[in-house]
Amino acid sequence: MDKKEIQTILEEAMEKGREAIPYGEVASYIPELSKADKNHLGLCIYTKDGRRYSIGDTNVRFTIQSISKIITLAVALESYGFDEVFEKVDVEPSGEAFNSLIDLDLSSNKPLNPMINSGALTVSSMLLPKVTFSEMKLFAKKLCMDPDMELDKDVYNSEKANISRNRAIAYLLESKGIIENDVEDTLDLYTKMCSLTVTAESLANLGLILANDGIDPTTGTRLLKTETVHTIKTIMLTCGMYDSSGEFAVYVGIPTKSGVGGGLVSTVDKEMGIGVFSPALDEKGNCIAGRPLLEHLSKKLRLHIFDRSSKMDIE
Amino acid sequence: MDKKEIQTILEEAMEKGREAIPYGEVASYIPELSKADKNHLGLCIYTKDGRRYSIGDTNVRFTIQSISKIITLAVALESYGFDEVFEKVDVEPSGEAFNSLIDLDLSSNKPLNPMINSGALTVSSMLLPKVTFSEMKLFAKKLCMDPDMELDKDVYNSEKANISRNRAIAYLLESKGIIENDVEDTLDLYTKMCSLTVTAESLANLGLILANDGIDPTTGTRLLKTETVHTIKTIMLTCGMYDSSGEFAVYVGIPTKSGVGGGLVSTVDKEMGIGVFSPALDEKGNCIAGRPLLEHLSKKLRLHIFDRSSKMDIE
Amino acid sequence: MDKKEIQTILEEAMEKGREAIPYGEVASYIPELSKADKNHLGLCIYTKDGRRYSIGDTNVRFTIQSISKIITLAVALESYGFDEVFEKVDVEPSGEAFNSLIDLDLSSNKPLNPMINSGALTVSSMLLPKVTFSEMKLFAKKLCMDPDMELDKDVYNSEKANISRNRAIAYLLESKGIIENDVEDTLDLYTKMCSLTVTAESLANLGLILANDGIDPTTGTRLLKTETVHTIKTIMLTCGMYDSSGEFAVYVGIPTKSGVGGGLVSTVDKEMGIGVFSPALDEKGNCIAGRPLLEHLSKKLRLHIFDRSSKMDIE
Amino acid sequence: MDKKEIQTILEEAMEKGREAIPYGEVASYIPELSKADKNHLGLCIYTKDGRRYSIGDTNVRFTIQSISKIITLAVALESYGFDEVFEKVDVEPSGEAFNSLIDLDLSSNKPLNPMINSGALTVSSMLLPKVTFSEMKLFAKKLCMDPDMELDKDVYNSEKANISRNRAIAYLLESKGIIENDVEDTLDLYTKMCSLTVTAESLANLGLILANDGIDPTTGTRLLKTETVHTIKTIMLTCGMYDSSGEFAVYVGIPTKSGVGGGLVSTVDKEMGIGVFSPALDEKGNCIAGRPLLEHLSKKLRLHIFDRSSKMDIE
Repeated sequence: MDKKEIQTILEEAMEKGREAIPYGEVASYIPELSKADKNHLGLCIYTKDGRRYSIGDTNVRFTIQSISKIITLAVALESYGFDEVFEKVDVEPSGEAFNSLIDLDLSSNKPLNPMINSGALTVSSMLLPKVTFSEMKLFAKKLCMDPDMELDKDVYNSEKANISRNRAIAYLLESKGIIENDVEDTLDLYTKMCSLTVTAESLANLGLILANDGIDPTTGTRLLKTETVHTIKTIMLTCGMYDSSGEFAVYVGIPTKSGVGGGLVSTVDKEMGIGVFSPALDEKGNCIAGRPLLEHLSKKLRLHIFDRSSKMDIE
Repeated sequence: MDKKEIQTILEEAMEKGREAIPYGEVASYIPELSKADKNHLGLCIYTKDGRRYSIGDTNVRFTIQSISKIITLAVALESYGFDEVFEKVDVEPSGEAFNSLIDLDLSSNKPLNPMINSGALTVSSMLLPKVTFSEMKLFAKKLCMDPDMELDKDVYNSEKANISRNRAIAYLLESKGIIENDVEDTLDLYTKMCSLTVTAESLANLGLILANDGIDPTTGTRLLKTETVHTIKTIMLTCGMYDSSGEFAVYVGIPTKSGVGGGLVSTVDKEMGIGVFSPALDEKGNCIAGRPLLEHLSKKLRLHIFDRSSKMDIE
Repeated sequence: MDKKEIQTILEEAMEKGREAIPYGEVASYIPELSKADKNHLGLCIYTKDGRRYSIGDTNVRFTIQSISKIITLAVALESYGFDEVFEKVDVEPSGEAFNSLIDLDLSSNKPLNPMINSGALTVSSMLLPKVTFSEMKLFAKKLCMDPDMELDKDVYNSEKANISRNRAIAYLLESKGIIENDVEDTLDLYTKMCSLTVTAESLANLGLILANDGIDPTTGTRLLKTETVHTIKTIMLTCGMYDSSGEFAVYVGIPTKSGVGGGLVSTVDKEMGIGVFSPALDEKGNCIAGRPLLEHLSKKLRLHIFDRSSKMDIE
Repeated sequence: MDKKEIQTILEEAMEKGREAIPYGEVASYIPELSKADKNHLGLCIYTKDGRRYSIGDTNVRFTIQSISKIITLAVALESYGFDEVFEKVDVEPSGEAFNSLIDLDLSSNKPLNPMINSGALTVSSMLLPKVTFSEMKLFAKKLCMDPDMELDKDVYNSEKANISRNRAIAYLLESKGIIENDVEDTLDLYTKMCSLTVTAESLANLGLILANDGIDPTTGTRLLKTETVHTIKTIMLTCGMYDSSGEFAVYVGIPTKSGVGGGLVSTVDKEMGIGVFSPALDEKGNCIAGRPLLEHLSKKLRLHIFDRSSKMDIE
């Protein structure tokens, strides 16, 4: 496939995404997020062999939101080991909305997976004795190769002012003995991690490092262990898109994690990272442009986990 | 029925209750409550025409716990009127454990009734702008004709240290816009009301005032409006015994409210109040001696709401 | 209260009911029921001392539907005794829609009460080895003093053609070992009982016999045991109006059972039976005119279980 | 890796599986299945380049059970197209037991995925107008390259005699308009498909054809379209192991489907099919030897979807 063909496919994908935007809405449950411009759309692809494609609003800053869950999980897996983390939180897809309390209260033992709020709060709480937010931010900057990543104080304050549901989840976890460290500190770390700013470019970098099994391809530095990355990618595939994860796996087939700030990070194993920014969300909380945009890329560039025979090689 | 016959029936009822005690356990989820002596058993009956029967441990002080929910509800009904209260909380029996979050999260609108924790927290929160805890305590003393009622600080502190689940419920209510006043103040008022001390005698007095449609029979003072009392008694009948309420209504048929401190208040319309103290609880959280004890009284003295043709009249 | 005053109150009650009718809809899930005229409204009151009040459409025939559940339960209680029946079905109000499967599947043991479909199917199944439908019909005729009661074949056929959900419930009960007799026979008996025709007059008679503790006041014949009737009335009070039962108990306070054919039977202990016919239903499946109509009667004639000091005595 | 090394790894994997067997139990809910010998263990690996490894009980016949769900789904996808099938059944992992009714009743629209009973019954029902059981059996024989596959009449009869729960699910689906064809015919086709006999060898063949994108490698005949196979493999990965699917994806990372007869079919994309037979099940209904056995193979032969850099190549 030559460069022009690839460029054409990316533009078609952008167009597919753009067509979906009118049917979505920016997140409204946090006032500060509702100020986003729903027409923003950015797509960024970084390949392992050094190619970089950027179209649209790839430099606009927005908050990482739930995409931070994979960073938090990665740090916890490396700090505590798999056994200790998965004793506290399961890895089963939930089939439930991301902020549901029902399964948790019924099952009475542990959150279904670390990509829903109850699971991510549990993982955040585990980290309290090990790392500070500053250290987490520093590591996130490295994983996203984004030195300008900062805490968005307006979003942070807005989220803290509308945190009742997460607070309810966290205290329920405390009541079950799952959260053992301070609940308010847990909520603070969790919210701060969600309020870090990224761009579509940062997310493409993150996706690329995951594609490259944890090694920064520009420096050759290993940032995450191989096993951590395999697990993160598997969980992104099975649980990354809330209760659309199964459908996304079938039609797109690329491990992807979404955030209500409008970001998506995708990782094509051994090959590339993809970052998308589009704050218009569907009713599940995923950016509505993401599915048609990535499905087009997946089909045309053959990126689906079970359709990888040919690749985005340039002749 | 002569006095001796009545005395015999009361002693038989005590015996029925005592036989059940070994199968129960004192509340363990709050450390301070677990110190109770599970062999305590007290029964107190006060009739509208001035007779007083007391057997067993009727002077032992214990915390009122969930029985305070009827006092809180009564004050809210009188302060705000029925419409405003029942716009915030339903009056449907729940068929769920008292501290369940599931119905609340599924239904997404309002607590099923004011006798479960979610409903009582909602009602407590409504009261915050209207009354102080001191005023509530003063009114509770009047309703129980118990000038010695006090806050049990040890129980209060122990409950505050183990309040995660109620805190989760309260923040979930806040996230749904049901609790509009300060959540921590709500929890504090709720916990303080639960930590007031009573005796079987206090509860018999409370039951008698309810039986007498809100008028203190010794002074003739009206403490609650007639309509408030009718509603409280109906809710005691349908929702007073957690998820055993339906069974209790069939087999005992006397409006009754339980508390995990081991107390029961029963009210036989127009006729008498009954107080029971027995801290050994069944798995639903009701004192395990209560059902056999009160069923015996109900059958022998014909106190069931649909079996009131003859009464505890002394020839 | 003189006769004219009473007549005025009844007419006011009818007016309250009539005003609600436009907000209701006739049952639509069974085609044959959807043919009902939603403007029908009938009210019939029969007192123990022989007075009879009939206003509106009191002779129109309609199907008894869920009101048959109290007849089936009564027969089961008398055939098997309380213990055997309540080993199979609980008596807890459900807080769930009448045809819910959720509580049943979660709890995994037994239906919450005999007034929801799962409970009534269980009770019907128990009866299979004891009675035939002909015998049940004969007994229902006696309880309703209605010799013209018949099976409405059109409704029966229509229900049998739309029985999938009840069939699902019944097979779930079989899978849990709760239904032990033939499932299809169970469904047939249940549906036939629902398809018996009554009038507001039949229901007033039924209510009167329940008010009179099981004795036909015209003949002095005992049709049901006292304990059976006490239990039936208690369950009507706590579970008779689906998931509005609690609210109905608070605001009306008269044991009442509804059916989706538009019927209501109410029973004022020791005093009167009330039959209502109005096929416009609210979203819970209760006739929408019933609540305002009966609440007016309850308030003006003081019929609430906890407000019975004065009665409908004629001076 | 040389042949001997591979042989050693397979034997280690068998040993890991064998150690788990004592902790499992054969399926007991169907009497005929409970007759299985829980010590049976067979492992069969067929590679695309023609190598065949068989250890243990690879010729023992057992019933395919839920593994038939992928065959039924494949036929439905090819007969109706993706849109029509996925309009009836979702592809979200459920986080619920395979025979749960709760999500279905709550969500009220469609089964969560085609690997749980409600979804598979829906798909089976769709097929009724298109194919006969004989045709399905013939196609299953081809997919498994197993000319000796037959209906096990004893298992079929035993399942039909214990089908209440599936019947409940099927009628619930009918009541929601999801199953539109005859329910009893649906149950019959579903049960017959479950009662087909296979061996570990048949399953390895099935896995190999899926690995080879639908083409029988021995004849070069295409049996399934590429897109069908991609979808089947994705759904196996996200939903194939009931409510252990997420954990299995993380630790094993090979698309796998289990059946309560003790079978497992795994498919390593572009490379090999794996069949396992071991009737001792864990509490989720998966063969208990499967996880340790396949995890060992996955780690040593690097078969995890995100760890495929080196393969089972013979030097």
